[in-house]
Parts: sequence; structure tokens; C-alpha cells
Amino acid sequence: MTHFADRLGSAIVGKRTPVLVGLDPRAKSLPAGLLAAEDANNPVAVANAYRTFCRGVIDAVAPLAAVVKPQAAFFEELGPAGMAALADVIVDAREQGLLVILDGKRNDIGSTAEAYASAYLGRDSAWGADALTVSPYLGDDSLAPFIERCRTHDAGIFVLVKTSNPGGGTFQDRAIDGRPLYEHVAELVEQQAAATSAECGYGAVGAVVGATYPEQLTSLRMQMPHAWLLVPGYGAQGAGARDVAGAFDDSGLGAIVNSSRGIIFAHARAPYSESYGAARWQDAVAAAARDMIEQLKSETPAGRLFP
Amino acid sequence: MTHFADRLGSAIVGKRTPVLVGLDPRAKSLPAGLLAAEDANNPVAVANAYRTFCRGVIDAVAPLAAVVKPQAAFFEELGPAGMAALADVIVDAREQGLLVILDGKRNDIGSTAEAYASAYLGRDSAWGADALTVSPYLGDDSLAPFIERCRTHDAGIFVLVKTSNPGGGTFQDRAIDGRPLYEHVAELVEQQAAATSAECGYGAVGAVVGATYPEQLTSLRMQMPHAWLLVPGYGAQGAGARDVAGAFDDSGLGAIVNSSRGIIFAHARAPYSESYGAARWQDAVAAAARDMIEQLKSETPAGRLFP
Repeated sequence: MTHFADRLGSAIVGKRTPVLVGLDPRAKSLPAGLLAAEDANNPVAVANAYRTFCRGVIDAVAPLAAVVKPQAAFFEELGPAGMAALADVIVDAREQGLLVILDGKRNDIGSTAEAYASAYLGRDSAWGADALTVSPYLGDDSLAPFIERCRTHDAGIFVLVKTSNPGGGTFQDRAIDGRPLYEHVAELVEQQAAATSAECGYGAVGAVVGATYPEQLTSLRMQMPHAWLLVPGYGAQGAGARDVAGAFDDSGLGAIVNSSRGIIFAHARAPYSESYGAARWQDAVAAAARDMIEQLKSETPAGRLFP
Repeated sequence: MTHFADRLGSAIVGKRTPVLVGLDPRAKSLPAGLLAAEDANNPVAVANAYRTFCRGVIDAVAPLAAVVKPQAAFFEELGPAGMAALADVIVDAREQGLLVILDGKRNDIGSTAEAYASAYLGRDSAWGADALTVSPYLGDDSLAPFIERCRTHDAGIFVLVKTSNPGGGTFQDRAIDGRPLYEHVAELVEQQAAATSAECGYGAVGAVVGATYPEQLTSLRMQMPHAWLLVPGYGAQGAGARDVAGAFDDSGLGAIVNSSRGIIFAHARAPYSESYGAARWQDAVAAAARDMIEQLKSETPAGRLFP
């Protein structure tokens, strides 16, 4: 296997886009026909619908994008049946040639952190993801088992640095020695990214930085030259292509930009709802993905990679 | 249903101890006979062994203690088979009259946080836990969906404030406006605990505060008069009964003290290994629990409740 950072770089270059498709299934938003109304409260039926829906999304985006990000919470919400569906969705994405970043925001200490790392990181782990999102509050030693697992299994982690929600600043923006907490977290991420860097120049340790704070995104890009940035907040959360331009390096690499609802539920929103509607929901998914690809290409440095 | 804080208080008074038994199963530490050597890498077989083992622990401690804390990571490590075992263990603990705090250290933003809350909090949720551990890094609005769910489902959350690991201070101890970050998190916890307080005076929002920092434990008890404290670090992590004395209020309530390995794997350590050994591992579990109960009774204010 190749280092995660190089696999991510190659996958982006191969598909000619840094678009990251978020797999955030929700029962209320599924296209008509995937879940009968009388099954809406049956977790096994909903889990089956999530499996079918996510596989349909993967089929639609696999020719277009390089990476998908299943959101663990929506599968966990269904209990064990949801977890079985999540495992199947990850296998399906890998079989379609996609990289899989599981969005679980996990962390713990000592041997418990080791268990999370062993659960999720690497294609021979129980869940088989290529990377996992991780929370930093527990400190540097809590990240160590994840980083060690990244080294031995060519996997990656993305540490929460600056999140896209309005309340993200409650603690993240508070000043410590004259700099916000998130910059201190970024400093740790950059150290670990540099220590694990691959041929492409990026490391196995990346950062989650929200698109909804474009200025911080630009400065965090400079502060973490070795860290891949996973950028949420595009589309449904209000940020556009220009807002994420600062996430990329000069060559157009260094960031992956996530859209979840904006792509997977495109059948229900303009302009896709008129062109496709629920029956052609997979075409709507592909169309929304193509539009996002075009926006990033024309309005961010990502376009330099694919002139 | 009754408010979580009152249920917790009643359960402690009813069982006459604030001992919280951590269910942290590990394949390598199971008593002989529960898992055949050739099955050590078979996740279904290991999950079955975890189910049997945890049910055995629950049988042994249900007459003695009021609350158990399954550690999600060790079940997640086994993939979907582990999650099915976790669900069964939670059901079993509830049927034995125990309260269940799932240790998952979850969190996310917006509707994703809602999904985690709906997944875990309340006996009619998918996993049916009474409470969940939650990480604070994402800020105040990330906690809101959990707190709302606590209100509507008589559940509880325990927010990470000051963790027991050596690196817990990397960010938690850094000074913001002259006070460490963990005190700012404690301030938010206290506000939310007071806003959700029940007849016993405590709220639905509690705090995780490690036993390995006794001075901070004492000052955090004072700073959060409405917050139940969940105290890890006892036993295997090095803290003793006197270290956790500061976690209790004057009446002897206000804290639950966790031991995991020290109780559940007592068959393998002195003095229990000599008296019981692997064959009588459940007796070793009960003996270790009884010893911890006695230690907390004689060396902490918890003894005042049960003279």
C-alpha cells in the first residue's frame, strides 16, 4: 500500500477534482420510493434504504470524485442495523475505487484510543476506512495511537482544528498566549503532519477547517504547510467556491472540499429538482457534483491542476 | 420516567455506593475459556465472547453497584458484530436494573449532533443508554441538541472537562484570561447543569474529571455545584480513594467513580488471582467491586450517605 497522503494526492489528480462527497443519509430526505412511509420508524428498513441510497450515490459520483466521507452519526442513529449498513457502504465505496474518510470525530486515551485506531484505520481494519476524523481536546498523547496506526497501515487522520458551526468559537477562538486555541491545535497538527510527510509533501495527519471562516482558512493553510485540509461547510452551510480558495496550495493541491446535502439530496433542490426530480435522483447527484467540480475549478487554485 | 439526575442519585443511594463499573472488554484479558485461541482474530467469535463476559460482569456487579459504563471503542473495534454485542450488553444491564452510561465521547454539529443524541440518549433510543460522554471542542451549540434530548428523554450527558491522561493538559491546562481552558469548559457545564437541575440539585449535564488530578477535582467540584462528576482514573490508572474524595459534595453525593480493568479483570491480579483465579472470575469481579465500595465508603464523603 502507498502512504495515505500520496494516495489522496494521486486520487485527486486522477479524478481532476478535490470534491469530497459526504454520505449523510437521512430518512426524511431520501428520494421517493427508497423508503415506504410505514417503514420510517423501522431501523432495519431505514438501514436498508440508507444502504441502497448510499450505493446509488457512490455509483453516481465514482466516475467524478475521488473521496467519500460517510457520516457515522446517521448510521449509529439506527443502532446495529445502521452499523451493518455503514460497513457495507464503506466496502462498496472502496470497490468502486474511492478513498473513504469516515467522519466519526472519535478520540479517547491510551488503549481506548488504540482501539478506535484499530477499529477504523486501514483497509484491513474492522471498518476498513482510509482515514478518520478525530477530536483534539484530550491532548497530544491521545493522538499518538492514531498516528502510529497511520504509519503502520498507510492511513490518515483529520484533526478538528476550526469547525464550521456558529458556536465553534466558544473555545476554539479563545486566546492562549495571544493566539486562538485553534492555532495551538494547528501547531500540533503541523508538527505531526511534517513528521509523517510523504512524497507529495503532505503528511498522514490533516486538519478539519471549516469553509465558513475564509480568512482563518487562508492563514491555517499557511500555518500547516504539511497538512491536508478537509474543508466542510460548502453549499448547504453557506460557503461558496471563493470562500475555500485559500485552502489550496499554489499548485492547487492540499485540500479536499466536502459537500453532503448539496450533492446527495440535489433531487429536492433547484435547479436540479426541475430537471430531474425524485425519479432521476442519481442524475441529479451527478449533475450537482459536476457543478461543484466546475465551481472549484474556475474559482480556486484547484483549477491549476487541471487546465 | 424520572429526570436522569434524580435516577442517578436514587440508584446510588439504593445500592449504597457511587462505584461505576466500566465495561472495557479486551480479547487478550478475558478469563480462560471464554475465547478459544484460534478465534482470537475472528470478530464474530470475539464479539460473542465480549457479550458473554460483559453479561457475566453485570451478573456479578448488579447486586453491588448502580451504574455501568460500556466503552464503545472496544466494541467498535470488532466491526458490526461488536456493535450488535454492545446493544445486547446495554439491554442486559438495563434488565438487571442498572443505569447505563455509554462512553463514546461523541460530538458533532447541527443535525449530526442531533443524530448522535437520538442514537444514544434515552431508553427508547436505538442504543437505549441513560447517558453518554460528549466532547466539548465543537462549542456550545454542539452540546445543545444533546441537552434538548436530555430534557425530552430524561437522559444525561457527561462533558469532558479535565481528563486523566498525562497529555490531557496539552490544551486543557492552557490559560485563557488567566484560567485554564478546562475551567472555561466547566463554566459552560455548570450553566447547563443548573439550567437542567432536578430535585436532587444536580442537572442532566455532568462532567468527566479525572481522578489523577486531585486538586483540580476538588476545585472543579466547587466550580460546578450542579454537575454530577464522572471520575475515571481510579485503580489501574493510579488514583486511590483519597484522590477522589474531593469529587463528592458534603452529603456524599455528586460523583460516580469509575473502575474498569481493576474490577472486570480482577481474576488476573493480586490479591484476587490467588483467591479465585480464572475459573471463579465472576467471584473475583464481585470481590474487587466490594473492596472498592469499602474504600470509597471509608475514605471519601460517600461514606456519609451509608453510615
